Amino acid sequence: MNDRPAVQTERTTAYRYPERVTYDRADAYAILDEALHVHVGFATEEGPFVIPSLHAREGDRLILHGSAHGRFVKTVSSGAPVCVTATIIDGLILGRAASHHSAAYRSVMVFGTATPVEDAAERAEALARVVENVVPGRLSGANAARRPSVEEAEYTAIMTMPISEFSIKVRAGFARDEPKDDEVAAWAGTIPLTTTPGAAVPDAITGTRFSAPAYDPTIHRFRQD
Amino acid sequence: MNDRPAVQTERTTAYRYPERVTYDRADAYAILDEALHVHVGFATEEGPFVIPSLHAREGDRLILHGSAHGRFVKTVSSGAPVCVTATIIDGLILGRAASHHSAAYRSVMVFGTATPVEDAAERAEALARVVENVVPGRLSGANAARRPSVEEAEYTAIMTMPISEFSIKVRAGFARDEPKDDEVAAWAGTIPLTTTPGAAVPDAITGTRFSAPAYDPTIHRFRQD
Repeated sequence: MNDRPAVQTERTTAYRYPERVTYDRADAYAILDEALHVHVGFATEEGPFVIPSLHAREGDRLILHGSAHGRFVKTVSSGAPVCVTATIIDGLILGRAASHHSAAYRSVMVFGTATPVEDAAERAEALARVVENVVPGRLSGANAARRPSVEEAEYTAIMTMPISEFSIKVRAGFARDEPKDDEVAAWAGTIPLTTTPGAAVPDAITGTRFSAPAYDPTIHRFRQD
Repeated sequence: MNDRPAVQTERTTAYRYPERVTYDRADAYAILDEALHVHVGFATEEGPFVIPSLHAREGDRLILHGSAHGRFVKTVSSGAPVCVTATIIDGLILGRAASHHSAAYRSVMVFGTATPVEDAAERAEALARVVENVVPGRLSGANAARRPSVEEAEYTAIMTMPISEFSIKVRAGFARDEPKDDEVAAWAGTIPLTTTPGAAVPDAITGTRFSAPAYDPTIHRFRQD
C-alpha cells in the first residue's frame, strides 16, 4: 500500500460542496474495507449499468468479479472506463428545515479501467480473497470452506482495478440549519444506523456440527475461527 | 400505480442466471420503497459515474435530486440514459465451497431517461416527498419540519424517471453446494443482517423539547408522529 493521495482529475472534482470531498488514501481504504459490497458502474452502447457486487481490496487495487460471459466483463475487458462506488450509511441527519435533511454516510468513488486476470490459478486465488474479505478466516483453519478450484475459476472472470483516481465524500454530524429556523418546533439531530446480525441458520447438512462465524463489530465482519 | 410488468429489453436481460431475474412491478416497488437510498449511474465523455442518493417513488416514477449545477443534472437533463439501482442486503449466504458464497440481497435496476421538473413549486413538493420517504410524517403534524421553500428549490434540481424498464434480482436461501462437498468440515448456512437504529442524538437547540422519530421496523423507517 502506498501513501499517495488520489490523482485528482476532472471526474474526481466536485462541482458543489467541494469541502465535503477529500482524497486521502488511508481514508478511502478504510471505507472500501468496511463496506460489505460496492456498486460497479460501466456503460455500453445502451447506456449505464450499476450492479451491486462483492469485492476485495488487495494492496492498491480492487478485485472485482463477474461471470465470464456476463455484460460487465465483456464491456470492461476492452478497456471501457469503470466507476466503483462503496457507500456506508451511518444514519440520518434531520434538520428543522426539510431541505437540510441528509443521510449520514461515507462513500468512495474509484475511477479507472479494469484488467482481466488471465491465469485461472490466479483467478482462483482472487476469488478466495473476495470470500475472505466477506468472512475473514473462512478459508483457513480446521473448519475452512473448500477453496475455489481452477475449474470453478474458468466460469468466473476476475478484474483488477488500480486505486489511484478516487474521491471520498463524507457527511456526518448535524444538519446545517439556518438561524431563521431556530423556532421551528421539530426535533433535529442525528440518528445512527448500524448493521446487526440476526441468528445464523445452518443448512440441513451442517446442522449443529460446526460453529457459525461470529460477528466482530470492530471489523464489521463475521469471523470464522 | 399500474400493474404492468417491466418492459423487457436487451439491457434488462441477464446473460447469466436468468432464473434469478424477474420483472414484476409490485416486487420492484417493494424494493424501491424499502431501500433507504439508491445508486444513480450515468455516463459523461469521461466515463461512468455511480452516486449514492436519497430518492422517492411517486406512483410509477422515481424522484431523483441533485444540485442544480452538478454533473448529474447537467448530464442527464439532455436525455442521457440513466440507471438507478436499489440494493437491500439481507445477509450472507455461506457455502461449503468458497465459490458458492454470496450475499443475500434484493436489488432493482431501473433504466431510462430522467426529465427535469421545471416548476420551482413542483420541485419543492418533490423534495418534500424525498424527505417524507426517509422519515414518514416528518413534514406534517405538530412537530413538523419546515417544508422546502421555492427559493430553496432554486438550488436543487429534481429529475423524474418513469419506472417502466427494470429488472429485479434476488438471492436468498442457502448456497447451492454440490454433493461432492457434503463432507467438507465447514459451517454452511445463512446469516441475516438487519439495519438497526442507535440512540438518537438531538442537536443543541432541540435538546429534550421534542421527541425524536421512532423506528418502525415494519416499514424500515423512522416515523415522526
